[in-house]
Amino acid sequence: MKVRLGPVPFVYPIPIVLAGADVQGKPNFATLGDCGVMGIKPALVYVSLGQNHYTTQGILEHGTYSVNFPPTRLLSVTDYCGIVSGRQVDKSGLFETFYGELGTAPMIRECPVNLECRVVKEFSIQHRHVFVGEVVQAHVDEAFVSQRDGRRVIADMTQLDPIIYALDNRYYRIGEPIGVGYREGKALQAEGE
Amino acid sequence: MKVRLGPVPFVYPIPIVLAGADVQGKPNFATLGDCGVMGIKPALVYVSLGQNHYTTQGILEHGTYSVNFPPTRLLSVTDYCGIVSGRQVDKSGLFETFYGELGTAPMIRECPVNLECRVVKEFSIQHRHVFVGEVVQAHVDEAFVSQRDGRRVIADMTQLDPIIYALDNRYYRIGEPIGVGYREGKALQAEGE
Repeated sequence: MKVRLGPVPFVYPIPIVLAGADVQGKPNFATLGDCGVMGIKPALVYVSLGQNHYTTQGILEHGTYSVNFPPTRLLSVTDYCGIVSGRQVDKSGLFETFYGELGTAPMIRECPVNLECRVVKEFSIQHRHVFVGEVVQAHVDEAFVSQRDGRRVIADMTQLDPIIYALDNRYYRIGEPIGVGYREGKALQAEGE
Repeated sequence: MKVRLGPVPFVYPIPIVLAGADVQGKPNFATLGDCGVMGIKPALVYVSLGQNHYTTQGILEHGTYSVNFPPTRLLSVTDYCGIVSGRQVDKSGLFETFYGELGTAPMIRECPVNLECRVVKEFSIQHRHVFVGEVVQAHVDEAFVSQRDGRRVIADMTQLDPIIYALDNRYYRIGEPIGVGYREGKALQAEGE
């Protein structure tokens, strides 16, 4: 039996990211889960923020933002960045920040993966402002990059150790790998042919 | 040291969902990871599909779609739904389907959580079609719903057992809970006051 829980956006799992932008000349970071992929080639990634969010102001000003993926050892400071606003608290000293090609999208060195994004589309919907960005560069800690079959590949998620969230308001760790994309269904495909 | 891996949309973790739509009078389901939350109240959830995808045709026709979250025991058939197109294979018999309030968004009974969505915004970007839907109803297996402090709450992700993905092309299981939202950063907040 199914129970109706009403209009709840219960997508799971949700990635926890720190969205970065320069606001009034300083790096600021907002914790959010409303982030995802919209395209692969070209690489499109969105973030959805409150229209009055401090970070929103910086993205609107520069047309750029970063997406940073905190590992679980940064749980406290990541949660903190979701509790306090950059309007009240200067978050620029919480992390070691660096810039890439865009020059206005501050990134967090302590996060193993950082995406530098240029806004290519934006819109307001209800009380949100949604930015769709084209990833111009992905920066990854060299410890998590290796060579396989002549190509550079990234470590699996158990090493990247992301903070994961769901609308039950809990944070989770990633579990073990259980399969490979476009391979687990091959047997069913063969049956059908 | 950071290594530059180029314009890769390396968001992680990625939720694996089965997007459902009626196409030419039959339920069809597409496996995708390009799905996420855009707003809480009202509840907004997007899916991004190829413009020529079979499922895209059904969503355009009815203005509705569903988002279904397969548990890991459905890994093979979920991967299969990402390999084959509804144009070639009739996927309507792969699952037990049901309809909710919208009447045209087929949902999968075997998935513990199903979201029924009405399209409130759509746009093309590059070779994708993005649908932003308002969740009109969340359907959850009663086994995963309980009462706590007089409110209905949903089981944690270790019980829902979602299929998780990353751009390393691997599937993963969820790990253990490690904290509570808006609580883990309270100590840092108190320090700052």
